[in-house]
Amino acid sequence: MRVNRKQIHVEWGDCDPAGIVYFPRYFEYFDACTNALFESAGLPKPDLLRTYGIMGIPLVEAHARYIAPSSFGDTLLVETRITEWKSSSFSVQHKLYRGEILAVEASEVRVWTARADNDPKRMESRPIPREVIERFTSS
Amino acid sequence: MRVNRKQIHVEWGDCDPAGIVYFPRYFEYFDACTNALFESAGLPKPDLLRTYGIMGIPLVEAHARYIAPSSFGDTLLVETRITEWKSSSFSVQHKLYRGEILAVEASEVRVWTARADNDPKRMESRPIPREVIERFTSS
Amino acid sequence: MRVNRKQIHVEWGDCDPAGIVYFPRYFEYFDACTNALFESAGLPKPDLLRTYGIMGIPLVEAHARYIAPSSFGDTLLVETRITEWKSSSFSVQHKLYRGEILAVEASEVRVWTARADNDPKRMESRPIPREVIERFTSS
Amino acid sequence: MRVNRKQIHVEWGDCDPAGIVYFPRYFEYFDACTNALFESAGLPKPDLLRTYGIMGIPLVEAHARYIAPSSFGDTLLVETRITEWKSSSFSVQHKLYRGEILAVEASEVRVWTARADNDPKRMESRPIPREVIERFTSS
Repeated sequence: MRVNRKQIHVEWGDCDPAGIVYFPRYFEYFDACTNALFESAGLPKPDLLRTYGIMGIPLVEAHARYIAPSSFGDTLLVETRITEWKSSSFSVQHKLYRGEILAVEASEVRVWTARADNDPKRMESRPIPREVIERFTSS
Repeated sequence: MRVNRKQIHVEWGDCDPAGIVYFPRYFEYFDACTNALFESAGLPKPDLLRTYGIMGIPLVEAHARYIAPSSFGDTLLVETRITEWKSSSFSVQHKLYRGEILAVEASEVRVWTARADNDPKRMESRPIPREVIERFTSS
Repeated sequence: MRVNRKQIHVEWGDCDPAGIVYFPRYFEYFDACTNALFESAGLPKPDLLRTYGIMGIPLVEAHARYIAPSSFGDTLLVETRITEWKSSSFSVQHKLYRGEILAVEASEVRVWTARADNDPKRMESRPIPREVIERFTSS
Repeated sequence: MRVNRKQIHVEWGDCDPAGIVYFPRYFEYFDACTNALFESAGLPKPDLLRTYGIMGIPLVEAHARYIAPSSFGDTLLVETRITEWKSSSFSVQHKLYRGEILAVEASEVRVWTARADNDPKRMESRPIPREVIERFTSS
């Protein structure tokens, strides 16, 4: 299973008046980590959208457990992997480390999504191409 | 049980290249909704921190189910309530509606948190004052 | 000249570890204020884009003078007006007040922008329709 | 004069429904670039605040000229330098390049700021220590 490791530098603007990372920012980090995982598999998101004619891979579910806080100036490491493939959706897991400490653990469920043929304002799920899945599962 | 309803106007800058609200922004909305719930109970956050000597009410858990997308220009309504009180933590539920549609359902677990007496860089949980809880539970 | 006044509630997540509004957030406020000005003129942005076939009104210039800080919990008032119309661009002025204090003064230059006919990835300026300008200048 | 170059990867969440970087995000990039410049001079911001007892280096002025748009997936390079030192403030210049193209040019005026001795809620400017300035001006 493909795993990607991405380093995050916590910026001043990511932190709140308590001096710690404002919790929604972690979801921004994780979104960038999912995109980095695809890029590591040879599928940078701009190409992905163009090649497969999808509008994105929006979330239907997001979950995070905040175990330890981080502060500006910290350097974090996020380990990202896809834990499950279904026909038109997949699950992503992120483990964010500050040094040795597992600081945040998160998961996302995302859907392979295109604009509906008959109504470009509607979104609909599509089957994930086998060749995409193979980029993550073959060694 | 106290319920607060907050209206959210989806801004251009909240939306991503797919034209829909970028999913971490919902957590920003919900954070503002939790604060608005406290304000509706007579406890605006700046006063809350000052009065009770806490540094904040950070999350240990966040969860969202994205049921339907929203776009810039939409007006949303979020219903927020506290669903459980423990000795030093509490659970918040948010239901975000676009018109009649339940578009996002989310929950947070937050901890009543102060700086440690012996080390201002460490955070520790504290018992939630009874009078705070009563603001939400008494009718 | 049309003037719009928009109230801004400073959220916890808008503020940085110094406890004051993180300066880029003001530009987000001002962007929402420009959109609110258009809405007050009967031109909400989603309709504006659809009706006139433009992709947006992106900035070519932004400027802000930060005179006094604001903190979470503050309620601010922003006065927004268009100060100049050119053939395909216009200038917007924002004055942000905290109580009686002028706290931030800002300006934007924005361009009426469409996708190029021969290349949807290129952006090009277009003449601003007279009827749009009249919504702001006629009393 | 010290110059720092920082690479920025434009993320999906940095972009708006027009598919280009939402303009306030550039100010977040530039804030990170100013901090990176200080770090390159041996003064990472957390140390800077602690060592000199300041609360931050907030802006009194920000300006940007947007010359060419950028999109998600783009890799940008920002060149940052301090262009002027005054007794308690300094000016920063940022040039953001997409490939060979100068895409955004920006400037900031920032103030060396501490909490007032007699009122921790008030901010006041302080003289910038000579040794700090020398880190940027000596070769």
